[in-house]
Formats: sequence, structure tokens, C-alpha cells
Amino acid sequence: MDQSESGTSRRTFLTVAGAAASATLLQQLMIGAVPATAGPVASAVAAPSAARAGDGRTVAILGAGPAGLAAALRFTEAGYRVTVLEATGRVGGRTLTARPGDQLTEEWADGSVRRQTCGFDQGLYVNLGAGRIPYMHQRVIDLCRRLKVPLEPYIHTSTANLYQTDKAWRGGPRHHRRIANDTRGHLAEALAAVVHQGTEAEDGLTSAQRTQYVDLLTQFGALRADRTYTGSTRSGLARTLTVQQMEEPADPLPLADLLASEFWKHGVQQDSNLYWHTTSFQPVGGMDTIWRHAAAALPSGTVRTDAPVTGVQLDGDGVIVGWTEDGAARTGRFDFCLSNIPIPVLRQKVTLQNFSEDFRSAVQDTPFAAACKLGWQADRRFWEGERYQIFGGISWIDHEISQIWYPSHDWFSPADNGTLIGAYNSYGSARTFGDRSHEDRLSLARAAAAKLHAEFAGNAIVPDALGLSIAWHKVPYQLGAWADWNPRVVEHKALYSTLIYPQGQDTFMVIGDQVSALPGWQEGALMSAEWAFDWINNGKRAVRLPVQQVPDARSLTTGES
Amino acid sequence: MDQSESGTSRRTFLTVAGAAASATLLQQLMIGAVPATAGPVASAVAAPSAARAGDGRTVAILGAGPAGLAAALRFTEAGYRVTVLEATGRVGGRTLTARPGDQLTEEWADGSVRRQTCGFDQGLYVNLGAGRIPYMHQRVIDLCRRLKVPLEPYIHTSTANLYQTDKAWRGGPRHHRRIANDTRGHLAEALAAVVHQGTEAEDGLTSAQRTQYVDLLTQFGALRADRTYTGSTRSGLARTLTVQQMEEPADPLPLADLLASEFWKHGVQQDSNLYWHTTSFQPVGGMDTIWRHAAAALPSGTVRTDAPVTGVQLDGDGVIVGWTEDGAARTGRFDFCLSNIPIPVLRQKVTLQNFSEDFRSAVQDTPFAAACKLGWQADRRFWEGERYQIFGGISWIDHEISQIWYPSHDWFSPADNGTLIGAYNSYGSARTFGDRSHEDRLSLARAAAAKLHAEFAGNAIVPDALGLSIAWHKVPYQLGAWADWNPRVVEHKALYSTLIYPQGQDTFMVIGDQVSALPGWQEGALMSAEWAFDWINNGKRAVRLPVQQVPDARSLTTGES
Repeated sequence: MDQSESGTSRRTFLTVAGAAASATLLQQLMIGAVPATAGPVASAVAAPSAARAGDGRTVAILGAGPAGLAAALRFTEAGYRVTVLEATGRVGGRTLTARPGDQLTEEWADGSVRRQTCGFDQGLYVNLGAGRIPYMHQRVIDLCRRLKVPLEPYIHTSTANLYQTDKAWRGGPRHHRRIANDTRGHLAEALAAVVHQGTEAEDGLTSAQRTQYVDLLTQFGALRADRTYTGSTRSGLARTLTVQQMEEPADPLPLADLLASEFWKHGVQQDSNLYWHTTSFQPVGGMDTIWRHAAAALPSGTVRTDAPVTGVQLDGDGVIVGWTEDGAARTGRFDFCLSNIPIPVLRQKVTLQNFSEDFRSAVQDTPFAAACKLGWQADRRFWEGERYQIFGGISWIDHEISQIWYPSHDWFSPADNGTLIGAYNSYGSARTFGDRSHEDRLSLARAAAAKLHAEFAGNAIVPDALGLSIAWHKVPYQLGAWADWNPRVVEHKALYSTLIYPQGQDTFMVIGDQVSALPGWQEGALMSAEWAFDWINNGKRAVRLPVQQVPDARSLTTGES
Repeated sequence: MDQSESGTSRRTFLTVAGAAASATLLQQLMIGAVPATAGPVASAVAAPSAARAGDGRTVAILGAGPAGLAAALRFTEAGYRVTVLEATGRVGGRTLTARPGDQLTEEWADGSVRRQTCGFDQGLYVNLGAGRIPYMHQRVIDLCRRLKVPLEPYIHTSTANLYQTDKAWRGGPRHHRRIANDTRGHLAEALAAVVHQGTEAEDGLTSAQRTQYVDLLTQFGALRADRTYTGSTRSGLARTLTVQQMEEPADPLPLADLLASEFWKHGVQQDSNLYWHTTSFQPVGGMDTIWRHAAAALPSGTVRTDAPVTGVQLDGDGVIVGWTEDGAARTGRFDFCLSNIPIPVLRQKVTLQNFSEDFRSAVQDTPFAAACKLGWQADRRFWEGERYQIFGGISWIDHEISQIWYPSHDWFSPADNGTLIGAYNSYGSARTFGDRSHEDRLSLARAAAAKLHAEFAGNAIVPDALGLSIAWHKVPYQLGAWADWNPRVVEHKALYSTLIYPQGQDTFMVIGDQVSALPGWQEGALMSAEWAFDWINNGKRAVRLPVQQVPDARSLTTGES
């Protein structure tokens, strides 16, 4: 191993024996009992000619987040000797599943370190970071297939979900089905009147097209034959069906109320945006299952936890990495180094030597967004009962907590308890929410949730003692939720373009969703790992052109434009 | 038992021992380890005062369909001695799950009887009848909870689903995401122009409302700031994302093409209608699991299969039922009789004595709809691969087969085979399709499916030999898909109103979705069983008024108005 260590280590770093023992698993994993899929994902990992190109060269991967572990799998499979240095005691990074006994830590600006311990009942969990896998995120799906991580549907939107605002309906929540369908009805009615009256000279529609357009609008909005909207069973029923009582539509929500509610600003139609389309997935048992499986598929000893990196020095045809482990400072020299360390952590905690000035500036100036989540344990899954009939999806609220997620799993489990996401916000509201104490976050989230569900009014069903909260921008070794790339900020193009290309003699690369077209998504992390692997191993060295555009992080993570 | 049998029977009909043995299960089932839910479902079965009101009185239930079995559970729990006479060899009626070795039978007008045997690989199945449980069908969900039938999500619509018509796009299929979102874009653009130019005098919108309306439309349609629609990533991406290549929306489908495609006539937006809303469910392992569990929860011997009813005679304070069993004609006298026999079968195969003239007319004149389904086995789940990325949902086609269902289960199972619904049509197209031979149905369905998926072009992946088809209107003891109630046919009100009320001395009632507000849905069957139980056992005898309206069967079963 082309590497020296200054500290003492009793661990076998990456032995030949260890590598051999896991070769079968890796071969199975990478080449595959699973069906080959076309496209970049499969070809990059399965190309036999590249399979042993590593030839024992060493790679240090800084951070056991999704990009780090995905890169570790690829480089190990290609014959590199890989070391993953992870600052914390766990793998997965912002893919965090909280289970009973897990600790959450935040570092506050006042220097205090604040800890919570998950007190959920056994068997319960909540995803406090990454929470869903859209169907078009084929890299993640492919990896789950290879790692045999079972996936189940994640339900993003149920029409039984609610929206609440103090601006309309005297503060009462309304069903998604009513808001969505009555809006369609009003829109269709208004437009059908215009189209019906139009002439070809005005709008270019032929007579046949005009008929079709009105027909489309009639179906789209559930209009009557006279092109008016007077309500639809799509929005729900006015009364219970019986053998004697047929369907009667609920009264439509007046357009004026829908406008006053400003529902469109509050996520109610998030699922119209690409990454919230159906079908989406979640791993059975928690999102971090992917990364636990990934780490387990690596040769024993590859991932070294509680080993925070302190420095990276470009050193000719290699990279010297310094870290702390078992209370001692260590260094190692590697042929390649991939940094999955979040940029704000790289900026604050890692000494960089011999990097370009552009790179230092990029590390200095890349902005990260804030995001918070809050998890509740409920002793009774009241939302799935006859009163609410909510099976998965998200209720939205015009409030700092923004949204409440209902679980897409264990709907009919014998146990009656379950977990909810009681807040998920980002940007400004996450700054505000994150600056509240854990107790204040719970109290605020409870008050908001009680506007949708009276069951939150007291502690009886949803106890404070079991609530968890996380402000990702305060989590050590994260210090943010995602790189806040903004196409409207001219300077971002240069920062991003610097970060995606290697430093040194193509020996160092930044990886992670932070340097991908998909900030805030696991797919972005895998895309970046693939990019680094293609560059270093496959010789796919792109021309170092500035990108035409940076990702729109806010839009990609919230659906807001 | 107040009953005599004319044939010989070696079976114990309904022994005290049998009833006692299952009492615990039934108590658990009916009164419940499961949480009480509010409303009519729970109250009707759990009311302790009514629990033993049956006091040993006898009930004959004709037909082991959903209504028959649900009624059997209720009446047994309430202390009645129940006999279910089922004409066929299985329970579940039109809730039919085909598994390896199962036989399908059709009787044709030419007198021929045509059989198919399901040759699927072990572990595969397809629901050829009832296929989904909407979240608002609380009776079915409640029963599944009580019977411990595990439910999993049924995905009705994925934006990866396709629509194909020869009328547009040179016959090429288009993604649901493009059709749905580009339509929204065009509509929003057209209406935003109108709203933006409007004045309060013209349209009544205040200045603040006008701003909000335009804002709503901008979000609704993914419009640009200038209120034009130029495409959106909601419809998909023009090229693959990489670290260097950010999102670029696919070109929008022109409005003219969308109009020409007439997608709105072909189910693409079926999920806007109430019973196709998310969240919906399917029992793990096949829809008929519900009814197998229900039958198993009854005292041994309650359900007698291969026992077709031949006659029903109202006889004072009881009902005499004649049937055939073990090759012999039998009769029995019961205190009550509930007929779950489909009206067309009652009309053709059962001699009715002492019924009112109105009732005979209703049996004579109640129309039933036709419906067909076709099931394929595919040796490879190609639709879930990177090319199509389809996980569940329905692709629609402007063709006699109408729709293709992708499975919502076993997405990542180790086996690579799976089943598809290759046709589901009703009314006119089902008459046409059902009149084709099984081979012709397969051939037609294959040709249509190949317009969406080239994998259907040959026999290699989806073999003809394993295809199944069913025309429900040709299935013995069914002879139709659902009662085709039509609010626009004046006579239907009288027919329906006659059928929902008891005959004789309140001793005979028709049950089934055929006499409910929800024809074609299992929920309707349970509603009807509840209605009969309430009438006979709970003394909730409704005033025999004509209903104000009959159900709109076509709309309820297809979403079309």
C-alpha cells in the first residue's frame, strides 16, 4: 500500500485477505445477478476492461455519505485499494434514519452542543434526511437492486391530505381533493367560456379543435354540459353513501376562497414537479438501509468511522490526508483522494494545501441551504382511522413547519403506533425554526399540527418526550442541507465549475450531491461518484469548460421556482 | 334447524360444535382486537345488544360473493345459523384472482363451453375481477383489518405511464407526465392572458385577486414570468443529467397535438375521479385473499360450494330454497334468504315463486354491463427497467383493449417474471372484445401492446401460451360485470327501488353491489350486506320509498360521465 501512517493503528487497513474474502460479494454486486440495464449506470460499473484498472492504487475517500460509499464500491470493484474516512460514528451522511437509542447532535453558535436521544418504541423509525426516491432516479434504484435493498412505495400525495391556512375557511383545513379539483373546475369553466366564444380569427382554433378543446376542458374540470362548474364528486361527497343515497358532490370551494388561501404557494401541488411524481420509493425499514448495505458490501476495514479529516495536501502524483483517529493525529498518502466532505465543513475544519486559488475561493464562497425536520412518535395511528383516512402523503400548512408527512409503511401493522414528520422546512423558515430550542420546535410544531388534527392538542397520543428535531445546518460535519446553487447568481457558475473538476494531477476531486445536477438528492451523490470514477478510472476526462448553468437548488429541493 | 333437506347429505350442515369452535375467531373478528372506528361500519357489527339477536334462526345466503360472505359473517356473529350456497367451486364472485392451475370458463351463445387453464409460473397471479380498494372504501378496509388481510399500495397512475393513439404523434406513445403537464401549461397560459387583461367590471376580480389568480396559474401551469408556457421539467427532461448538464425541459407537446390525441376520452385522467384517487390498496397476494379469509372465518361447513340454486319460494314466514348438490336436487326452508346471485343469473337460472310482480319485472329488466380483462405473464419485467421506468399504474390506448396495467407488487423481487393486465374494457368494446375467441383476444391485445412496448412484438418475452382472458358477461353464474344503472333512464328508478327492499314477510332480500350506490365495487357489496343486516337483524326498516336517483354505473366504474 502506497501509504504511510504516522499514528499507531492496530487495525488492518485493507488487507489482501480482506479484499479476497469479499471479492465474490463484490462481483455479484457489481457485475451482477441482477439484469443488465442499458445506459450510463450499468456500463460504468460493469465494463470488464476497466474492472481491474486500479491495480492496487490507493484511494482515500473522505466521508461515508452516499457519494463516498458509492465511489468506494466502484473503485474497490475496479481494483483500487480504498479507505473511507468518516468523521462520525455512522455511515450515510444526510441519509439519516433515527431509531430507538440513536443520538442526534447539534452545535450551536453559542458554542453549546445539544443532544437528543431517540426514544421511539422498538421497531419505529423516521427518516430525518433523505426521504424518497423518485422513479427517474435510476442510479439509486439500480444500486438498491444490486445491494438487494428492498424498496416499497413512498406515497407523496393522497387526496385525503389536508391544507390549512389562517387566510381562508376560518382556519379550517381542507382536503387536497377539494382544493385540487375545485381549482380545476373553476379554471376550466373560465377558459371554456372563452374558448367557446372564440373565433378562428382570434385564437386560430378550427371549428373541430374548438369542439375538442371545450370537450377537453369539460372533462378536465368536471364541467356540466353547459360548461359551468357546480361541483364534482372528485372533490368528495356531500353525504355518506347508502343503498338509498347516491353520490352527491360536496359544494365546491369558491374561487375567491381558493385565491385567498394561496394554497399554490404552500406545496399543495408539489407533486406536479418532476421529482415528486408518482411512482416514488423508500427502502423498507429506513432510508439509511441503502448505505448500511453499501458499507457492508465493502471489504472489512474499508470504512473507518470516528476518523475526522483535518487536512488535505496535494503532493505531486498523490495526496496526503491527515485525520484524527483513536485520539491520535494520523496521515496517509494516497494515489487519489475524493472528498465527500460538505463544502462548509471543508471550509471550517480542513486545512487545504497546494490547492488552486480558484478552488480555495470556491470552498470559501459556496453557499449551503438550511433545512430542518421534526419527527413525532404517535401512540395511535389516528390519521389512518375512519375520521381522516390518510395513508401516506403530506399535509401542507401555511406555517413555519410547512408540512406534515404521514408514513407510507406499516399501515396495517398489528402495532398501533407510528411516526410522522412533524415539520420539514428549508431556507428562511429553517433558519428561524432551527434557531429555536428543541422544546420550542416541538411546541410550535404541535400547535401547528393541532390545526389539522385535534389529536395533537395534548400530549396523550403524541408525547413531547419522544419528539425529535434536527437542523441540518447545525449538525457537526454537515453544517448545511445542500449546496444552494442559484442560476440567477452569476458568480455561482464559476464556483461550481471549479469544484467539479479535479485538483492536483487529477488526483483530488470533490464528490457529493453538492457538485451535481441534483443538489439535495441521493441521485446527485451517485451522479457525482460516477463522474469521479469516469474521470479517474475510465479516462473520461471532460474538457474543463465552465458549465452553461448551475442547478437551481431551491427549485430542485422544494419544487418552488 | 328449521330446515329439511330432500337429498341425502353426509356433511354436517352447521353443527353446534362447529359454531363453538370458531366462536373465538369470530368474536375477535367482529368485536375486535382492532381499534374501533367511528361510523356505520363498526356500529353495525359491534353493537353488543344485537349480538345474539339471531337466536338460532336460519339464513340462506345464495352466492359466496363479497356481499354473501360479508352477510354470512355478520349474521353468524349475530347468532343466526347461516348456510351459504355457492354455485361454483370457489368463493369471491367477481373478485377473481387467477393463479397457476386455475380454470376459467365461459359459456358462449352458440352453446359451447370454453375453458382456459392458468399456466403462470408458481407465485404469479393476476386479478381478473376487482383490482383495487380506494381509501374511502372504508368498509372493505375495515374488513381487511379485521380479517388480517395484509394490504399494500395499488399505484393507479405513474407519470411514466404512456398513452398511445394513431391520431397524433405519428402513433408514438407519449408519457403521462408530458400530456398532463403540457396540457396544464397550455390551459394556464390561455387563461392567464385573459385574467391578466380582465377588469373588475368584467370578471369581478379585485386587483389583489387578479394578482393571486395569475400567480396561481403561473404555478399551476409552470408558466414563465411573462405568463407564457414554453415547456417545463414537469414533463420530463430533454437530455440526461450529468454533473455538467443541468435540467432542460422536454419540448412541450403542442396544444394542437394534444387536442388531436383526444387523450381525455381515453382514461389518461381517470385518477382525477374519486375512486381512482391515491391512496388505493390491493391485498398482498391477490384480491381474493379477502374472501378466502372471510370464508375461513366462518364456521366449518357454512359455505357449500358447487351448490347452484335452482329455485326460491317465499313461504309464509320463511323461504324455501332449492339447489343442486352432489348431483341431487335439494330443498331447505330458512327463516331468511339473501340472494347474492347476479340478477342475470337469477333471471335465467332460478325459478322464483310467490314474488311480487314488481320484483319479477325488476329481475327481468335490470341491465348488466359487459366487461373483459386479459392477463399476460411476462418472463421479464422489462417495463420496470431503465427504458420504461414504469412501476405500477396504467397505460392507456385509443384501442379496443383500452388499458394496460402494470403490477404494483414484486417490483424488486428476485424472480424477474411478472404479470400484466393486457386489456380492461367494458360496455361496447367489451361486447366486441368478448365476442372474439381467446386466441383472437390475445392476438389483438398483443398488437395493441406492441404499440407501447416493442417487447410485445414477438412471443419471446410475453408468451401467448400463458395469456388469459375473461369476458365477465360470458362467465357462468355471473353473466355480466355490474348492474348498469343509469340515472338518465327513467325506468331504472323503479327497478332499483324494487330490488333494494325485502320480499315476502321481510324474509328475502337481494344483496350485492348490484343493489348498492356503488355498482362494480366491493364496497358496494359490503354496503348492501350491511343494509340487509340492518333491516333484518337491527330492525332498521327503512320506509319503502323510491330512491331519488339510481347510481351512475358507467361513471362509477369507468370515470366517464
